Amino acid sequence: MKTVYILNGPNLNLLGRRQPEIYGHETLDDIRTACAALGETLGLTVELFQSNHEGGIVDMIHTARENAAGIIINPGAYTHTSVAILDALNTFDGPVVEVHISNVHKRESFRHHSYVSLRADGVIAGLGTEGYQAALRRLGTLLA
Amino acid sequence: MKTVYILNGPNLNLLGRRQPEIYGHETLDDIRTACAALGETLGLTVELFQSNHEGGIVDMIHTARENAAGIIINPGAYTHTSVAILDALNTFDGPVVEVHISNVHKRESFRHHSYVSLRADGVIAGLGTEGYQAALRRLGTLLA
Amino acid sequence: MKTVYILNGPNLNLLGRRQPEIYGHETLDDIRTACAALGETLGLTVELFQSNHEGGIVDMIHTARENAAGIIINPGAYTHTSVAILDALNTFDGPVVEVHISNVHKRESFRHHSYVSLRADGVIAGLGTEGYQAALRRLGTLLA
Amino acid sequence: MKTVYILNGPNLNLLGRRQPEIYGHETLDDIRTACAALGETLGLTVELFQSNHEGGIVDMIHTARENAAGIIINPGAYTHTSVAILDALNTFDGPVVEVHISNVHKRESFRHHSYVSLRADGVIAGLGTEGYQAALRRLGTLLA
Amino acid sequence: MKTVYILNGPNLNLLGRRQPEIYGHETLDDIRTACAALGETLGLTVELFQSNHEGGIVDMIHTARENAAGIIINPGAYTHTSVAILDALNTFDGPVVEVHISNVHKRESFRHHSYVSLRADGVIAGLGTEGYQAALRRLGTLLA
Amino acid sequence: MKTVYILNGPNLNLLGRRQPEIYGHETLDDIRTACAALGETLGLTVELFQSNHEGGIVDMIHTARENAAGIIINPGAYTHTSVAILDALNTFDGPVVEVHISNVHKRESFRHHSYVSLRADGVIAGLGTEGYQAALRRLGTLLA
Amino acid sequence: MKTVYILNGPNLNLLGRRQPEIYGHETLDDIRTACAALGETLGLTVELFQSNHEGGIVDMIHTARENAAGIIINPGAYTHTSVAILDALNTFDGPVVEVHISNVHKRESFRHHSYVSLRADGVIAGLGTEGYQAALRRLGTLLA
Amino acid sequence: MKTVYILNGPNLNLLGRRQPEIYGHETLDDIRTACAALGETLGLTVELFQSNHEGGIVDMIHTARENAAGIIINPGAYTHTSVAILDALNTFDGPVVEVHISNVHKRESFRHHSYVSLRADGVIAGLGTEGYQAALRRLGTLLA
Amino acid sequence: MKTVYILNGPNLNLLGRRQPEIYGHETLDDIRTACAALGETLGLTVELFQSNHEGGIVDMIHTARENAAGIIINPGAYTHTSVAILDALNTFDGPVVEVHISNVHKRESFRHHSYVSLRADGVIAGLGTEGYQAALRRLGTLLA
Amino acid sequence: MKTVYILNGPNLNLLGRRQPEIYGHETLDDIRTACAALGETLGLTVELFQSNHEGGIVDMIHTARENAAGIIINPGAYTHTSVAILDALNTFDGPVVEVHISNVHKRESFRHHSYVSLRADGVIAGLGTEGYQAALRRLGTLLA
Amino acid sequence: MKTVYILNGPNLNLLGRRQPEIYGHETLDDIRTACAALGETLGLTVELFQSNHEGGIVDMIHTARENAAGIIINPGAYTHTSVAILDALNTFDGPVVEVHISNVHKRESFRHHSYVSLRADGVIAGLGTEGYQAALRRLGTLLA
Amino acid sequence: MKTVYILNGPNLNLLGRRQPEIYGHETLDDIRTACAALGETLGLTVELFQSNHEGGIVDMIHTARENAAGIIINPGAYTHTSVAILDALNTFDGPVVEVHISNVHKRESFRHHSYVSLRADGVIAGLGTEGYQAALRRLGTLLA
Repeated sequence: MKTVYILNGPNLNLLGRRQPEIYGHETLDDIRTACAALGETLGLTVELFQSNHEGGIVDMIHTARENAAGIIINPGAYTHTSVAILDALNTFDGPVVEVHISNVHKRESFRHHSYVSLRADGVIAGLGTEGYQAALRRLGTLLA
Repeated sequence: MKTVYILNGPNLNLLGRRQPEIYGHETLDDIRTACAALGETLGLTVELFQSNHEGGIVDMIHTARENAAGIIINPGAYTHTSVAILDALNTFDGPVVEVHISNVHKRESFRHHSYVSLRADGVIAGLGTEGYQAALRRLGTLLA
Repeated sequence: MKTVYILNGPNLNLLGRRQPEIYGHETLDDIRTACAALGETLGLTVELFQSNHEGGIVDMIHTARENAAGIIINPGAYTHTSVAILDALNTFDGPVVEVHISNVHKRESFRHHSYVSLRADGVIAGLGTEGYQAALRRLGTLLA
Repeated sequence: MKTVYILNGPNLNLLGRRQPEIYGHETLDDIRTACAALGETLGLTVELFQSNHEGGIVDMIHTARENAAGIIINPGAYTHTSVAILDALNTFDGPVVEVHISNVHKRESFRHHSYVSLRADGVIAGLGTEGYQAALRRLGTLLA
Repeated sequence: MKTVYILNGPNLNLLGRRQPEIYGHETLDDIRTACAALGETLGLTVELFQSNHEGGIVDMIHTARENAAGIIINPGAYTHTSVAILDALNTFDGPVVEVHISNVHKRESFRHHSYVSLRADGVIAGLGTEGYQAALRRLGTLLA
Repeated sequence: MKTVYILNGPNLNLLGRRQPEIYGHETLDDIRTACAALGETLGLTVELFQSNHEGGIVDMIHTARENAAGIIINPGAYTHTSVAILDALNTFDGPVVEVHISNVHKRESFRHHSYVSLRADGVIAGLGTEGYQAALRRLGTLLA
Repeated sequence: MKTVYILNGPNLNLLGRRQPEIYGHETLDDIRTACAALGETLGLTVELFQSNHEGGIVDMIHTARENAAGIIINPGAYTHTSVAILDALNTFDGPVVEVHISNVHKRESFRHHSYVSLRADGVIAGLGTEGYQAALRRLGTLLA
Repeated sequence: MKTVYILNGPNLNLLGRRQPEIYGHETLDDIRTACAALGETLGLTVELFQSNHEGGIVDMIHTARENAAGIIINPGAYTHTSVAILDALNTFDGPVVEVHISNVHKRESFRHHSYVSLRADGVIAGLGTEGYQAALRRLGTLLA
Repeated sequence: MKTVYILNGPNLNLLGRRQPEIYGHETLDDIRTACAALGETLGLTVELFQSNHEGGIVDMIHTARENAAGIIINPGAYTHTSVAILDALNTFDGPVVEVHISNVHKRESFRHHSYVSLRADGVIAGLGTEGYQAALRRLGTLLA
Repeated sequence: MKTVYILNGPNLNLLGRRQPEIYGHETLDDIRTACAALGETLGLTVELFQSNHEGGIVDMIHTARENAAGIIINPGAYTHTSVAILDALNTFDGPVVEVHISNVHKRESFRHHSYVSLRADGVIAGLGTEGYQAALRRLGTLLA
Repeated sequence: MKTVYILNGPNLNLLGRRQPEIYGHETLDDIRTACAALGETLGLTVELFQSNHEGGIVDMIHTARENAAGIIINPGAYTHTSVAILDALNTFDGPVVEVHISNVHKRESFRHHSYVSLRADGVIAGLGTEGYQAALRRLGTLLA
Repeated sequence: MKTVYILNGPNLNLLGRRQPEIYGHETLDDIRTACAALGETLGLTVELFQSNHEGGIVDMIHTARENAAGIIINPGAYTHTSVAILDALNTFDGPVVEVHISNVHKRESFRHHSYVSLRADGVIAGLGTEGYQAALRRLGTLLA
């Protein structure tokens, strides 16, 4: 079974507990559970990580170079400011899908630009936490 | 059963026959078939339209006000230039998901801005024609 | 009696039925009736048209070249994006008054620019549907 | 009878005597007379003021808070540069209509932006001195 | 004999009748006649179309995919606003030459940018209606 | 005892009476009283002025050159538009603290730039009317 | 007693030892001591932290969600670049005051924009290390 | 003898007493004396005014319409912000020369743009107070 | 016979020898020969010059004032940077056609702006070296 | 006697012969004569040069380092594009006055910026050819 | 012997293993070895560090304040986004040379701006890993 | 032995004699001598040229096409303004290294952009005249 990393950026550890009117009530653990179940049907092992540190996410991507066939990434606020994460993803050969829980295009203008989208194969925004599963299905296709 | 409109903008009638390295080999008919089948499992009737005319798409959205519970829209090139389509969608009360077959964020900078995203609930780009099905699943949830 | 065309752009067919908190409850038919009555007092025959198609509005302006002495135009969303309508108006010799029902300057920034204003003799925004009558009075003066 | 203030900004004291090809031959006194007559038919008392001083216009608006039910304002050159007048208008509860004698959108680009439009309920430009009467009619409706 | 399409955008149906100081006195029919004659000497059949509709021009380009070896296009006002026409031309394999009757670079700044130039092989502006013949000669070379 | 001028710009004469949800319920007189009391504990005499006229504020600063050791200034709307006040402050040798009652950085973008900040030693925004006292304490330190 | 967190960003561990002409001679320990004393008079317990890591500051703000009633934050260089800190503060319910020791508006233009100001209730710049005490007094009022 | 007005904007009443390293040691009285003497040799009567009020300068220009054949204006800070002064000068028929004592182009970028230059016949900057005499000589030629 | 100057800017002496994938294999001599032949049929004498010096091209245009009835100019890189050449052309009374061998609009963005187009009567780009002949034909018409 | 160089840029060799409605009828020789005469009264020897070559002007400024006490420069079109001339002037120790015959601020926007003004002590525009004499008088003062 | 720190930013731990067509085949260890050898000939001890964390690099620079006489820094992606590293370098008194392995100016436009260059004494880009040695030689000179 | 051209742009003939606080005391002759010596150890013949003329530098690059294997270029002020030099370098097949004596990124913003960097293999700034030798060493590697 191939492995998929689901990487989550800053403040996503609070998911389900902050601003539920924007982000809903599901937690990262709920997402891990749902994706693991879906992954099984797709023949994919799922590992989910979170870090508030830009460098921490870079480190995870480096690990993914050895251990993962594909990456789902919700870079949180680093979406808009991190060239380092873009560069790290550029060293990764497998498919990458970027996920945002809310529709970032309807929010402040500084949330409209994504460095990660310059590398991602697919981008999903505003599907709520279902977006992770849509991304996982796409990786299922691409890694088949 | 609720009805979902899948609206497609200019040049998408050529899908599967133009630039397959960007857009793949599936046609709009293939998408209609795949979405109809998926829709059935979700309790949704799917109707797919295409027009090369901006006004034609506005007209379709007006029809959707009467006949559809949700809209999936791939506005093609009008994504970036049409305030009229945005305004039409603003008159529609149900959920809207925007779909792009390619990852528009990796292409020319004039393709990075979407008027439709200012109204859409969700936005999906770069999942190929699978993006339509991801959108349909999301409508399945929102219209449940 | 001289004739005045009142041209209306995309989505205005829904006037009175969509977003009444912005656009009010009057319909295009109400406007036609009110303007026809006022026109009579001014010695002007009024004809009102609407199209969701940019090209359709261009066509109407071409017709106006033969049949109308003045134009009132509410270009709707095409206000902000259509050079074609500007060019069509540039081929028309009589007076032109541009009308917007809402005060577009208080809305999104992409609604602040009007190509049509580069040609219009007068511009009226935010007077609600009364704006059409203010425009008609102005044409009454200019065509006297 | 409710009172309406008609406030006029810098250089408008010269109206009728400067650049008649742009501004016409009517003076502020002519406007006062015409609006007073129209006001009577609308049940409105009209008072017209002019100042070349930004602070003077702010003062007038403060007075209007006590004495006027609505404001018609032609801010002249301060349209484009005065946040102070915008702020003063923001302290006024009644309806406000902004008037420009010429179509400012056809002139230099620095005349295209109006701070006052961010507060005004309606905006009229390019109707010549008739614009004041169109504004007064609108206040007649809003204050009815 | 190979076929060349000459596509003309909005307001060009009025050619020869509007603003002759900019566009001259020749009509589209004059252009058709002159190009047909020149085409014969070059071994090219010429077909000339015009539409005021952006979608109409997209449709014509789709037809050209089947029927034409090269395209001459004067997109009129859509030059500056239509990504849809650019995308349609991107689906066409033969040579494309863009023609403007006036020198658009000497006119308003919004006429300086052309989406179509991003695809065209050659661009001609300001040669009057002779520009069509210069374009046709170029296609004669490229299609030889 | 050294003297501190507290200068207030346009519309601040209405403080406590306009938009209390932004500016609170305290008046300029309340501020004068509170600052006078605090000034006494700091060994500072406080004089408070207000003008709706840009030139009036320039005049006050010129007077301060003779009579005051430090300036607290809330330039109101002139913050964003007045080079004249900046230039006047540049002729003043003592310390200057700029005060805004609301957090201007959370409001419209044209309120984010301050000419006065280019000269001020300190800037305080969003502390409500307490900001004046914070500024006075700072002058107490700097003039000690 | 309620608790207030004083969070300090990158390079502030060097305070008092680097560029004293800009930042003065007081250290973070001096600030802690002064604020603790002042806090006691206001009924507030003060805890001061510093980190050179953007993620470290995000972590501290998460801790503050459980342990603090208000936050004083000097984000240092992250003021201008960190959306992650803004997002973290958006998850905090209590009052937030932003402090900069120098007047950042007189320095390089990239220091004029603050993401944190989009969330902060108050902003203080250029009061030297006294700014922390002014912030604390404000929290004393807001948390009273 | 024809009359020339020399109009001076905000803070120029302090000339000779503020920032002499930029503006030198001469006062407005010195300039009046020197220009009166030079004017006599040129057959011109000179009258010099100063105001810190934008509206005051507009008033002076209106007076000049009746009393002066030419204007020398140093608008000070209003150079960069006043459309009202530009508009006032546009109502004046005689020649206008703009003077700045320092070379404004070497100072902050917001001092590089002048509204007054859009109307002035000549512009002089950085000649110190001699600039007024150079301007007067030019008016001597133009009014000869 | 009237004379036409064909002026060529920097690096065009290498034509046919550099980057043939962009510029083709023809040399300036080939162009001179082809244009001379075509010129004869049009009743025009052709003289072709080249210089790598901006000032050299200015000099040539000055000579053309005496000796030439029309100018064809390929300003090469100076197209985008030379106001001096624009000014020189502004002193020339006859018709001017600008030629670029490649379609500059498909290349780097700094090649999209042309100072020369502000003066040229016609502009031709992307027709390869045939562009010179198209330009010559146009001069044949204009000088007839 | 000290020497002053008067340097003139491209196209100024045509002065008096081109566009006299902008530049008047005086030639460079007329300017040389007038300035020589004035120079004598000021104790200054005048030498006037002209070049169409940017490098030629740089060369002249290098010569001025040895031979001239001050420079008057009318850089013509190089005003707006030449950093090289700015750098050359930065190597010159004496005073520099920049002259433009027309008021460049009333012309195209690309003529509003001057690299030379970043170094010049004084700038004169729109005084016609009298500007050279005004500049010479200023050098008379500065070199006295 | 003086010590030089060679600091390396995010993703540089992968050097030699990622995108060798851009970055070559040498690793950080190879660079350490080569620089140590060269350092010996220059009388310099070399210590090389790498971190994926922005804060980690800030920490290293703080350590350098105590332990190093000069710094060579390749900030990787933080070059373009980190004010914190700029500020840290501003607290360091010795010479700083910035190194980029590739020529960043030929890559995406967001890589053209460097905050670090605002502090660095020298900047080297595109010399491959030799750039480190060129930097070290420069420090050899500056620290001699 | 292969030959390397060292090309120097405007004002560099004054090196060592102008602004030594920026550019140091070494002359071009010193650089020639140092580079010749270093070149010998690298097996490279060095030829150094300088011109104040943009066209002169273009000419030199054309000569280099025949005579040189690599180019070191310090384009001086033409770095920021010359597309012609960029185009000339684009016709040169060998390696190119760009050198600036000072760190241009710390100077005026118009010095931050380099056209030459779009072609150069390596870029060196701020190493003083040692930069030439660093460039030569790099060519030694690339031409080995």
